[in-house]
Amino acid sequence: MSKAVATRVLVVGGGFAGLWATRALAADPVEITLVERSNHHLFQPLLYQVATAGLSAPDIAAPLRHILRTQANVTVLMQDVVTIDKGARCIVLADGSSLDYDLLILASGVGHSYFGHDDWAAHAPGLKTLNDALSIRRKLLLAFERAELESDAIARRAWLNFVIVGGGPTGVELAGTLAEIARHTLRREFRRIDPADAKILLIEAGSRVLSNFPESLSINATQHLQRLGVEVRTSSPVSSIDGDGVSLPDGKLNARTVLWAAGIAASPLGAALGVPLDRAGRVVVAEDLSVPGHPEIFVAGDLAAIAQQGKPVPGVAPAAKQMGTHVARVIRARSRGVASPAFHYRDFGNLATIGRSAAVVDLGHLKFSGRFAWWFWLLAHVFFLIGFRNRILVLINWAWSYWTYQRHARIVVGDVDASRSGKAQ
Amino acid sequence: MSKAVATRVLVVGGGFAGLWATRALAADPVEITLVERSNHHLFQPLLYQVATAGLSAPDIAAPLRHILRTQANVTVLMQDVVTIDKGARCIVLADGSSLDYDLLILASGVGHSYFGHDDWAAHAPGLKTLNDALSIRRKLLLAFERAELESDAIARRAWLNFVIVGGGPTGVELAGTLAEIARHTLRREFRRIDPADAKILLIEAGSRVLSNFPESLSINATQHLQRLGVEVRTSSPVSSIDGDGVSLPDGKLNARTVLWAAGIAASPLGAALGVPLDRAGRVVVAEDLSVPGHPEIFVAGDLAAIAQQGKPVPGVAPAAKQMGTHVARVIRARSRGVASPAFHYRDFGNLATIGRSAAVVDLGHLKFSGRFAWWFWLLAHVFFLIGFRNRILVLINWAWSYWTYQRHARIVVGDVDASRSGKAQ
Repeated sequence: MSKAVATRVLVVGGGFAGLWATRALAADPVEITLVERSNHHLFQPLLYQVATAGLSAPDIAAPLRHILRTQANVTVLMQDVVTIDKGARCIVLADGSSLDYDLLILASGVGHSYFGHDDWAAHAPGLKTLNDALSIRRKLLLAFERAELESDAIARRAWLNFVIVGGGPTGVELAGTLAEIARHTLRREFRRIDPADAKILLIEAGSRVLSNFPESLSINATQHLQRLGVEVRTSSPVSSIDGDGVSLPDGKLNARTVLWAAGIAASPLGAALGVPLDRAGRVVVAEDLSVPGHPEIFVAGDLAAIAQQGKPVPGVAPAAKQMGTHVARVIRARSRGVASPAFHYRDFGNLATIGRSAAVVDLGHLKFSGRFAWWFWLLAHVFFLIGFRNRILVLINWAWSYWTYQRHARIVVGDVDASRSGKAQ
Repeated sequence: MSKAVATRVLVVGGGFAGLWATRALAADPVEITLVERSNHHLFQPLLYQVATAGLSAPDIAAPLRHILRTQANVTVLMQDVVTIDKGARCIVLADGSSLDYDLLILASGVGHSYFGHDDWAAHAPGLKTLNDALSIRRKLLLAFERAELESDAIARRAWLNFVIVGGGPTGVELAGTLAEIARHTLRREFRRIDPADAKILLIEAGSRVLSNFPESLSINATQHLQRLGVEVRTSSPVSSIDGDGVSLPDGKLNARTVLWAAGIAASPLGAALGVPLDRAGRVVVAEDLSVPGHPEIFVAGDLAAIAQQGKPVPGVAPAAKQMGTHVARVIRARSRGVASPAFHYRDFGNLATIGRSAAVVDLGHLKFSGRFAWWFWLLAHVFFLIGFRNRILVLINWAWSYWTYQRHARIVVGDVDASRSGKAQ
């Protein structure tokens, strides 16, 4: 592509940061290319509901090129980015081709970190993408199916033991929902096992779950999880994970299903920049979100490391959206020759749900939990789904699940583990 | 399991025939085991809509054990059946265990036949299961994405050529819907290609499409497909299919997307019975649907070969349901010591849809096509979804698709073809 008159803005990643930056530049004289490895933007806050069969994958995702179809200054490319050459000001794509940029907005997010134990990944999948969610759904549903088939009591027990590693919001949501599935959704559907015999363990290395919430809400959440039948173990670092289960300070627990909600690792494209990173591999950015020494490169969303009043800006959807919008603002300021504004994170609060009718809400000045917090959580999430037509469908699904205890997406698709695939039937 | 007092009925397959037989035996003094390799019953008539991104997988499927949860005389096992030992009256499961039966109802259906060219399967997937539908969806959506990325004109053309082999109802539905996607759904969403340049070819070896319909409706369907932009080629047997395209009587067509809707092959469990089969491998059954010489074995659904007034009973959902219910009736008659009734297929008619606002309907005495036929098709399908809560959701999705030309399930999940998977992003 020859050098165009318009500034060429390259956005890597179609999550909240990348998409919000792209949309905020709709009226600017720029030529945007948005590169994303999947064909959709994902509403990640509800991803655990796809994993736990409450929602279908398309309910929380929308094709990026459909979202951006009327924005004439954007080209969407579904492609993997292999690396970035900041000297040549280009990125290299998986097919070997490269794309030049005048300005780069890197918003490729974070993945899972197994703290140096990458071999754990095969046994304890994490939850970041729709594929992750569908794998976890398959794993959860198949565990009960296998338990029903298993005649050996010890082997059956291992299929009914579920371990969730990590007591942050995702771990708490998964554990609470899984407990409901075992106690309510699957009730009376099996003949040889009682799904309510499932043991659901939430393992946290630190001293409390939801450590980013005030301590009183952590206590509330723990009590609610226990009422749902979840066993919460804090101060329990995991020392190993294999196909048989997990090793904890007090011994090994046999479990065929282990889920990982413990650690995040920055996208390797952060390191490809060759600039200072924080401990988690995130790119340390200046106060306008550009990379120090490289005003042509911005990093936004979970991949950006920036502190505000001494506290790191958290890796949550509202922060990513604000960063995306801010980068557009800086680009506009520069084109007008005025000073770049500094990014200020507006913290609207922190929500986590635990199960039906229970959530914790921390709005700073106001903290509450229980049924009202759950309604607050629900309305906030539906509100932010706005712009997706799926809002209506999600509400219908939720209402139906609430009244019937059912979860409509209890459908196993994809490769059922090799050990089960027999001859044709 | 020790020999129980109740008759042990083993049902293989949770499709229409197996599920209808199981439900029809709810009040009988039998002990039913239903063995099915997937965890759900599938509403196959709408499967092409999952393949073409109009519906989500859970919209047309429901967990078998949920459907049967209140029927106390059924145990559902999610398991592959490897073979049948009719001498020992047992089936062998994929885990090596076996299950004894007093009565066997074999309803394991049909798969695809590539007429001896099994190597075509890798290049031209067929449509029988939800996994098939999700693979086809991924293939269709990725073809447009690859075309957008491709700089070479000839290679791009191959991504925009779509070939559907087989002009039966499934082929016609796929071709018509794909034409709509290319002309309407994706309009204005790409910057480098025009999706309307897609060439959609429907290939039929016989002299007309929808050969099981009256000729006037075949002509109607062909004309409507052509108006949608589908190129219909009849009397065009395919002589080879590989990664580059298909070979037809008039030469090779380069196409990266080929779908198979041409032939069916009976489940190999039919052959495992060691009894006479028809040319397609289906089990030739007596008029009460039992296997001649083996009154303890019934075959129902697509796997059963039976003629009625000189015409074979077609492999459609209503016939499968009727057969399932009939087998239950025969079992009941026998337990009362009365003569087994003969199966009589009630043919309520034949429907096929072509695209928005077009379908063909053959009710025997009444044949019609066009917009009214399409409404008839739509209502009939929604009506038979009854019992699934998904009816409402399907109606909402259809209404939305109708007004917006959009298809909400345009989400690529699963393994994107190895050639695209680059390094982490």
